[in-house]
Amino acid sequence: MTRPLVFHDDRLFPAEERVRGVARELYGLVKDLPIISPHGHTDPSWFATNNPFKDATDLLLAPDHYLYRMLYSQGISLDALKVPSKAGVPATDPREAWRLLAQNFHLFRGTPSWIWLNHVFSKVFGFEVFLGAETSDLYFDTINDALATDAFRPRALFDRFNIETLATTEGPHQSLKHHHAIRESGWGGNVITAYRPDPVIDFEDERFGAAMERFAAVSGEDVHSWRGYLDAHRVRRAAFADAGATSTDHGHPTAATADLSGADSEALFQSLLKGEVTPAKAELFRAQMLTEMAKMSLEDGLVMQIHPGSHRNHNTGLLASHGRDKGADIPVATEYVNALKPLLSKFGNDPRLSIILFTLDETSYSRELAPLAGHYPVLKLGPSWWFHDSPEGMMRFREQVTETAGFYNTVGFNDDTRAFLSIPARHDVARRVDSSFLARLVAEHRMDMVEAAEVVVDLAYNLPKRAYKLDQPKPASASAHAAQ
Amino acid sequence: MTRPLVFHDDRLFPAEERVRGVARELYGLVKDLPIISPHGHTDPSWFATNNPFKDATDLLLAPDHYLYRMLYSQGISLDALKVPSKAGVPATDPREAWRLLAQNFHLFRGTPSWIWLNHVFSKVFGFEVFLGAETSDLYFDTINDALATDAFRPRALFDRFNIETLATTEGPHQSLKHHHAIRESGWGGNVITAYRPDPVIDFEDERFGAAMERFAAVSGEDVHSWRGYLDAHRVRRAAFADAGATSTDHGHPTAATADLSGADSEALFQSLLKGEVTPAKAELFRAQMLTEMAKMSLEDGLVMQIHPGSHRNHNTGLLASHGRDKGADIPVATEYVNALKPLLSKFGNDPRLSIILFTLDETSYSRELAPLAGHYPVLKLGPSWWFHDSPEGMMRFREQVTETAGFYNTVGFNDDTRAFLSIPARHDVARRVDSSFLARLVAEHRMDMVEAAEVVVDLAYNLPKRAYKLDQPKPASASAHAAQ
Amino acid sequence: MTRPLVFHDDRLFPAEERVRGVARELYGLVKDLPIISPHGHTDPSWFATNNPFKDATDLLLAPDHYLYRMLYSQGISLDALKVPSKAGVPATDPREAWRLLAQNFHLFRGTPSWIWLNHVFSKVFGFEVFLGAETSDLYFDTINDALATDAFRPRALFDRFNIETLATTEGPHQSLKHHHAIRESGWGGNVITAYRPDPVIDFEDERFGAAMERFAAVSGEDVHSWRGYLDAHRVRRAAFADAGATSTDHGHPTAATADLSGADSEALFQSLLKGEVTPAKAELFRAQMLTEMAKMSLEDGLVMQIHPGSHRNHNTGLLASHGRDKGADIPVATEYVNALKPLLSKFGNDPRLSIILFTLDETSYSRELAPLAGHYPVLKLGPSWWFHDSPEGMMRFREQVTETAGFYNTVGFNDDTRAFLSIPARHDVARRVDSSFLARLVAEHRMDMVEAAEVVVDLAYNLPKRAYKLDQPKPASASAHAAQ
Repeated sequence: MTRPLVFHDDRLFPAEERVRGVARELYGLVKDLPIISPHGHTDPSWFATNNPFKDATDLLLAPDHYLYRMLYSQGISLDALKVPSKAGVPATDPREAWRLLAQNFHLFRGTPSWIWLNHVFSKVFGFEVFLGAETSDLYFDTINDALATDAFRPRALFDRFNIETLATTEGPHQSLKHHHAIRESGWGGNVITAYRPDPVIDFEDERFGAAMERFAAVSGEDVHSWRGYLDAHRVRRAAFADAGATSTDHGHPTAATADLSGADSEALFQSLLKGEVTPAKAELFRAQMLTEMAKMSLEDGLVMQIHPGSHRNHNTGLLASHGRDKGADIPVATEYVNALKPLLSKFGNDPRLSIILFTLDETSYSRELAPLAGHYPVLKLGPSWWFHDSPEGMMRFREQVTETAGFYNTVGFNDDTRAFLSIPARHDVARRVDSSFLARLVAEHRMDMVEAAEVVVDLAYNLPKRAYKLDQPKPASASAHAAQ
Repeated sequence: MTRPLVFHDDRLFPAEERVRGVARELYGLVKDLPIISPHGHTDPSWFATNNPFKDATDLLLAPDHYLYRMLYSQGISLDALKVPSKAGVPATDPREAWRLLAQNFHLFRGTPSWIWLNHVFSKVFGFEVFLGAETSDLYFDTINDALATDAFRPRALFDRFNIETLATTEGPHQSLKHHHAIRESGWGGNVITAYRPDPVIDFEDERFGAAMERFAAVSGEDVHSWRGYLDAHRVRRAAFADAGATSTDHGHPTAATADLSGADSEALFQSLLKGEVTPAKAELFRAQMLTEMAKMSLEDGLVMQIHPGSHRNHNTGLLASHGRDKGADIPVATEYVNALKPLLSKFGNDPRLSIILFTLDETSYSRELAPLAGHYPVLKLGPSWWFHDSPEGMMRFREQVTETAGFYNTVGFNDDTRAFLSIPARHDVARRVDSSFLARLVAEHRMDMVEAAEVVVDLAYNLPKRAYKLDQPKPASASAHAAQ
Repeated sequence: MTRPLVFHDDRLFPAEERVRGVARELYGLVKDLPIISPHGHTDPSWFATNNPFKDATDLLLAPDHYLYRMLYSQGISLDALKVPSKAGVPATDPREAWRLLAQNFHLFRGTPSWIWLNHVFSKVFGFEVFLGAETSDLYFDTINDALATDAFRPRALFDRFNIETLATTEGPHQSLKHHHAIRESGWGGNVITAYRPDPVIDFEDERFGAAMERFAAVSGEDVHSWRGYLDAHRVRRAAFADAGATSTDHGHPTAATADLSGADSEALFQSLLKGEVTPAKAELFRAQMLTEMAKMSLEDGLVMQIHPGSHRNHNTGLLASHGRDKGADIPVATEYVNALKPLLSKFGNDPRLSIILFTLDETSYSRELAPLAGHYPVLKLGPSWWFHDSPEGMMRFREQVTETAGFYNTVGFNDDTRAFLSIPARHDVARRVDSSFLARLVAEHRMDMVEAAEVVVDLAYNLPKRAYKLDQPKPASASAHAAQ
């Protein structure tokens, strides 16, 4: 039996009428603001080619690790969900794969995926019945029909979603051709990149060797000398800035930083290149490279993002059969106070540097991150991230961070997603949760309405724009592109 | 001055009227469901002999570490509470011991013991006045009078409490005679056991030697050879399964697992048997045995429960005078991601295995446990446990786990208690808290009522039944017993 | 444009009307109770000399690390805020420094500083307009005018604030002359001291050598022999007790305790004195000294306070330019269960000892501290501390501690402040938060109103008085002073 999909206008607001009224009012101030998405993982080729998306399964299910990890946890195989393995894309009928999602949609009750998907279903595709076994085909066909129309091509959706800026993430060894193509296309959408050097920094990543080869080729530098390696970073950072990047991104296992001498850094690098890789040496090199990246940021002004604390690809069997990034990354306890000290001792008070810290370990919010960001001029806190990019997770972030770091040492919301259609849904959740948090402060007379109205707009729009330097004039060469 | 004991029908529901209304409605769907108690520590001899309980102090105070630890923390001696020491049961007048509880009942304000006891007082014994110094004797006499009647014998209470299944916990070295007696008695109550092999696995437990002797005797195996030792486990697991067990239970200090070769395992075992016990070797052996137990579960289908993270018997003086389990177990920080990797790398994707994880370290809920259970097919999360088996603790569990693991990677409620009379109280608290959590999601339009109504029944009844395989046909020999 | 400063009577109460009504009623029972401030850092010379405070910047901004750390985090220099550096007090115009606070007051939205300052502005100085750029001078002038009057001298404010007891904190090497002057002045205010021996215990503190010299001088003992060193502590503890002290205070990096033999302690002390200082040896000495302090408390009855877990002076550059205690102390993860075991194994059940534990690591509340305090007779829990001395922080403390430790293993509120004018504000926040927490329990029928009314008064007044032994007859010599 089908039942209606009611996606209520008051969703995510606290039930108590006084607080809900204030939340509704604050949300009204931000709901239509443009989306600033300064950190994410969408595919720039979508916007470069503007080809239509393929089908519901290919767009919404097979690439979304939030969805298939939950289904996998209940014994459904990735093949049945059409998730690519090392052997390629499974031959599964996409309609059957979609049915598995539909039949098991109850697994997502209480999760943010429920909210994001229902937002997409309701607001993007206009569904009025709930997804389930009996509506699976209706959904699959309706979505596919829509995707075949011009209104659902990537650029049209980008415009419809009111995205002011969207950042993707690329490695130093990767081409920026899609970004160049976007700029040269004459389409006005502001799709920028971000510099994520991990693949050429992490000697423990099995892709390191191949990435270094491409890094050498694309930079034209001798990446096997310490000086050449650093220069290659400089060359590529400049190219990324030219393609609109205002930030770098660092996803190391830990937050460790180091402050080695030049000679020691060089010796470490050469030893690792020779294959003398131990976990401790690889860790020390990553740590030193954060400090080197900070040094370069003093020069080129790129904002650093540090995202530590994920044990990547924890499932050995799945890594062997399906490769990386298949929903098996698990957070671990993450220490910041000692880890960041070498870098902060060197540059912690330098007004030219800006570092945005993220965590997957919520215990660090009130204990370490808020006290650090509430003191050091170079530090700001990224929003609740990944598993914590959820109503409860966002609320815990505000509750645990604000009293020590305030609102103005935070940077608004990042969607961090590869699920393009969920971007408006995710920003909407963030705006609703921030409105709800502020509404409680107002209702408890801990803030007045004038202040809350300013803060809610700052969180939704001004802070991310300022923190990621998206409010600053672009460098000459980048402007030249942008002027096209 | 006595005052009324008002145990309100809306207890534990959120105050806000809209949420409370939904909570009330959801709770109405589950309040009368049978109790599934798949993990606990009641004494099977109660149900085997069906002898009446002795008196209020002996039944409710002296064996309940929640009660006497709080009183002890405020300077009241265990002797005065009639808690047995190594010297035996103190000669204290049980009426005087009860008075100490009554006079100090204010210490339990805000604790779950307040709720459990008042539930027992109100619902089981029918008291309408509050416990205090002036009602102590009334309570003591009324309870004792009731206990002397047939309606308060163990089996009568079991039936009155609407318990569908009750699991006790026994060691491999222990007899299952009470379980056999229950089955042979013709009484219909389903009292099963669970296999807790810690005493014959933990070389650091002072009871290890004696337990191994009894293990040898009861299994008929040569437990001092590695092969014989493993066989003895197999023999006893089969006997436990025959006595209704569907699960094993492992309460190690940490969650460490290992994957040693057979030769290394044997060498480690022999070295430890020779007395070469170090903390590291004892830990490695426990770690390896979790993997061995998982291997046996592949064969016999017993569900594994892993309960790590308690520093047992922390109070040295009390351990010397009163022995183990006297309220001095203290949780410690517990790591799961690296600890479980050896076991998960081996069996993490095997559909034959099911592992239920518990924690005393709430920081692992959102950081480690929900991400692990939201990915690995073999993993489920046990409910909030022990110190966290409380309204706030249960709510934190749902708030911190659901968004990543959903509801269907959890297993409903375990009471884990030796306080038989508190079992309905504890399950009632869990049902009220889950109803309240779901009611908030409904009121915030994050779930619809159709879904919440299904989930609340699943949490109260279907999930524990399924997770502990209590919904499956019993093996032949067990069925033969059950058919009596 | 100025806007009104409305500091609402219902501030900090939950919005839901039923809960708010109960909170209001409970708060009404405690709002006018005298303030017990058993732990803090006000300057005893204020009360000894009773000289007027200087100006708004000097009193409220420059010494308050909560304020200048937030401003510093946003790039405002400490010089501009007139915060003293090693070079002395900056020549900055105090009116300009105040303007920086006024212009940037939005940074404090959502922080406890917003509440404390607005309390001081509204209740102490009577402001009815909000602080901002356009009211900065009005504030500066009005505050300064008030401070010049007799009604705003330290003793007058002490009396107006209804402070029953105020404890300051001094080192063993410091004079107690201000305390003696206060007692001899005939003024009735009860200002006492607390014994904080860290400067003569921590070999890693750069002030150690100088402190030891003064310790020798003021005690008259040979502090470079182990026996003389311990005797010097005894001499100074007696002098502190004579000046009203009822407690000692220990702010070590960790909670480590040790139980070395006398010979090993002496050898360790002598080795450290010779300059053989390693982090491990310094840590072991601090650990042993906690046990020595406990031993002395058995004799003289001083209550021990243990405040571990702060990484002091994390900002290397700022430490070099401005010295210690400039807002760069950052909490770190803190372990208690193993750390305290040596001390607790020795004295954990001794009725003569009382230890109050604090933490900056909120993860220890439910995992370690509540279970420890809910068992050991010698342990009590201090309130949420420092960064967590805030509405959300206090609420988390009650939510995470109460179910295991109850209310009666906690000790009420400590303001721990050097910001004298904020003391009523801080106690008012604590009373409002405790009232709100209790109101929820009442509204959820987890406690009745009779109980809540008793608990709220106990938390605000009786528990701190009892825990810090302020309800006990003073020793003879102290009483002689007190009788003046």
